[in-house]
Amino acid sequence: MSLEHQQPFRQAFRVYYDNTDATGVVYHAEYLKFFERTRTEWLRACGLEQDQMRQEQGVLFLVSRLQLDFQRPARFNQLVQVDCSLERLRRASILLSQRLWLPGENLACSAQVRIAVVDAAKLRPAPLPPQAMQLIEAGPAH
Amino acid sequence: MSLEHQQPFRQAFRVYYDNTDATGVVYHAEYLKFFERTRTEWLRACGLEQDQMRQEQGVLFLVSRLQLDFQRPARFNQLVQVDCSLERLRRASILLSQRLWLPGENLACSAQVRIAVVDAAKLRPAPLPPQAMQLIEAGPAH
Amino acid sequence: MSLEHQQPFRQAFRVYYDNTDATGVVYHAEYLKFFERTRTEWLRACGLEQDQMRQEQGVLFLVSRLQLDFQRPARFNQLVQVDCSLERLRRASILLSQRLWLPGENLACSAQVRIAVVDAAKLRPAPLPPQAMQLIEAGPAH
Amino acid sequence: MSLEHQQPFRQAFRVYYDNTDATGVVYHAEYLKFFERTRTEWLRACGLEQDQMRQEQGVLFLVSRLQLDFQRPARFNQLVQVDCSLERLRRASILLSQRLWLPGENLACSAQVRIAVVDAAKLRPAPLPPQAMQLIEAGPAH
Repeated sequence: MSLEHQQPFRQAFRVYYDNTDATGVVYHAEYLKFFERTRTEWLRACGLEQDQMRQEQGVLFLVSRLQLDFQRPARFNQLVQVDCSLERLRRASILLSQRLWLPGENLACSAQVRIAVVDAAKLRPAPLPPQAMQLIEAGPAH
Repeated sequence: MSLEHQQPFRQAFRVYYDNTDATGVVYHAEYLKFFERTRTEWLRACGLEQDQMRQEQGVLFLVSRLQLDFQRPARFNQLVQVDCSLERLRRASILLSQRLWLPGENLACSAQVRIAVVDAAKLRPAPLPPQAMQLIEAGPAH
Repeated sequence: MSLEHQQPFRQAFRVYYDNTDATGVVYHAEYLKFFERTRTEWLRACGLEQDQMRQEQGVLFLVSRLQLDFQRPARFNQLVQVDCSLERLRRASILLSQRLWLPGENLACSAQVRIAVVDAAKLRPAPLPPQAMQLIEAGPAH
Repeated sequence: MSLEHQQPFRQAFRVYYDNTDATGVVYHAEYLKFFERTRTEWLRACGLEQDQMRQEQGVLFLVSRLQLDFQRPARFNQLVQVDCSLERLRRASILLSQRLWLPGENLACSAQVRIAVVDAAKLRPAPLPPQAMQLIEAGPAH
C-alpha cells in the first residue's frame, strides 16, 4: 500500500490559559491534547466518527505508544498548527506522525503516535473494521 | 434530620504545575477538581465508593449547581486543605459547602455545590438508594 | 451607560475526549474552560489581547465569582456554541453572562461570571485602563 | 558517577474523575501529570523545591523528550503507584525512568523522560547549579 498520495492534514488551535502553566508556557501534557484533537479531526476528514464507530462497531482507539520531542515552547494566545500524517496502517494499529507548529512555521513539538484498535467493552486489541481501513487508506478528503 | 453532629471533613492536596496557568497562579477551573476530589474522599469516608454505586445500583452523582467565590489565589507547590460539609440531603440531591484553604488558614475559595443523583444510563434524576442516604446522614467515619 | 446595543457574541467549540470523563459526558470543570476561551475571543473581538494588556499595562483578568447552572450534559464529538454578553462594567470588575448550547439550541449550562481586574505583579485589584474600558463598552466588532 | 546506590522513589495517587475520559479509563495525557507530580516529589525528597530554584537560581525544568509505552489502562478510583529513578545526570539535562503501577503491581505505563534545565527568563539551556547536582546525585532521602 502506498501512503504517499495522501495530502498532509493540518488543523489550527488557539492556545488558551488552560493550556499553560506557571512557567509561562504550554504545559507539556497539553501538547498531547492538541495532537489527539487533530487525530479526531483527521479521522473525521477521513469519514470516520469515533462515537459512531464505538456504537455501531464496538471499537475504540487508544494510544499505545508515544514519542515526543519538544523543541520550542508554545505560549498563551498563539495560533498553532498541528498536522497529522499516516505512517503505517496495520490490522489493529495505526502509526501516525504529528507536529505542532508555532506561528512562522517554527516547530514546537513532534510526535510519533501508535494507536491501538481495541474493542470498546474489554479494551483488548481488535481488528480495524474493513470499511474504516479503506477510509483511512484513502485519507482525509479535501 | 440534624446534620450538626457531623464533624468537618478535610483533605490535603499539593498544587502541582498542571494546576497552574501562565498568570502564575492556580487556573480557576482547577479549584473544581480539588473540590470534586474532596467530595470523592468524603463519600469514601462515609462508606460509599462511586464505582460500586454505579455498577451495583446504577446511580451517578453529577454537579447541577455551583457557586464559587475566589478570595486569594493558590500557587504552585502549596499544600492546600479542602473541606466538605453537608448542608442538606434530599431524595435526589445533596447540597454541600466546601472551602479551599491556603497554608496559614487563609481562605482561597469557597463553594456551594449541589449534586444531583442520576441514573447512570439516562442521566435523569434518580432517588438516592436508602443505604447511601443513611451513610451520608451518618457522615464520614474517623 | 447602555449595554443594550451590544450584539451577542458566540463562539463554537468541538468537544474532544480530553473534555469528557468516565461518566461518559463532559467533566463539569471543563465548562469553565469553554467559558474562559470564549471570554478570550470576546475580548479579542473587542480589540483587546490579554498578553499585550499584561505586558504593556500590567493588568490581568482573574475570575472572582462564578455561578453555574448545569441543565443538560454535553457529550464527546458535539459541536457546542458558547455565548458571552456584558452585564455590567465597573472600574475594576466586569460582570458577564454566558451560556453553553448543545446542537439544536438546547441549553447545557449557564454562568454568571465576575472578572476582577488585577495588577499582574501583586494580583491586587487595579483599575481597568481607560482605553480597555472604552473598547469593552463598544463591544465586539462584527 | 554511580547511580546504583539510589533507592527507588515511589509516590501513590488516587485516580479521580478528572483523570478519566468517556472511553471509561484514564485519558492518556493524564499519565504525564502523574509522572510530573512524582518528579516534583522526587525533587523535593532530594531536597530541591522548584519554586525556590526558580526564584533564587533562576532555573526551571522543562520536559524535552518523552517516550511512553501504555500497557494497561488505569481506571477511576484506583490507587496507583508511580516511581521515578535517575538514569543519567548531565550538566544541563536529567534522564529519568518512570513507571505507573496499578493495584497488584500491574504495569500501566512506562516512560523515559529527558528534562532540560533552562533559565527561567529565556527558557534557554542552562547548567544545573552545583548544589542541585549534588543533591540529585545523592538521591531522595528516606
